[in-house]
Amino acid sequence: MSNYSKFSSSSDARTELHDKMGLTGAEISINNLPAGASVPFVHAHKKNEEIYYIISGKGRFEIDGDKVELNTGDFIRISPAGKRQLFADANSPISYICIQTKENSLEEFTGNDAIMC
Amino acid sequence: MSNYSKFSSSSDARTELHDKMGLTGAEISINNLPAGASVPFVHAHKKNEEIYYIISGKGRFEIDGDKVELNTGDFIRISPAGKRQLFADANSPISYICIQTKENSLEEFTGNDAIMC
Repeated sequence: MSNYSKFSSSSDARTELHDKMGLTGAEISINNLPAGASVPFVHAHKKNEEIYYIISGKGRFEIDGDKVELNTGDFIRISPAGKRQLFADANSPISYICIQTKENSLEEFTGNDAIMC
Repeated sequence: MSNYSKFSSSSDARTELHDKMGLTGAEISINNLPAGASVPFVHAHKKNEEIYYIISGKGRFEIDGDKVELNTGDFIRISPAGKRQLFADANSPISYICIQTKENSLEEFTGNDAIMC
């Protein structure tokens, strides 16, 4: 079986990659919100830390009542307990990826996990 | 303590976010290679699945001897055992993020891990 899989980005409102790519350590979604739109609910998580990466556009997060400005290239980590809602800017769409991983699941990494071939 | 952290992207050759952002389920690096350059070694991993996301530009992966074309917006998952090396195109720089997570560490996700507030 191949050691890799590939997926080319989508402009759909939401694309979930876990099943499409056989991910086992994360769920990653690609999300595209039009100007003035928002994720229609506030949510938190039981076990998963989320990291958001803003591909393009701008908007804001509301996290535990704080307003956090979002611009292209920003990364945001949110602990499971953080109550979050993402809004596109009134005048700009926003595209982002959301990475869910289990909090505290990473052990060694980079130099301590790599094998040089 | 705040439930979130933010980092704005860097154009440095490599930026590692684990310590900067307090990540606990992933290491994420931001990488920028000039045209014609490559990661200077072939590597695999002990425990970590990697997911690469191509922010801009183009290039190719060589994975277990296969050539995999890379374009803006592509996602590539590589199992720990995959022997990988990333190359920028001869005529284009490439910018990408690399997400390391422990293979098989994700339990429930999305609807099964979320709490509506």
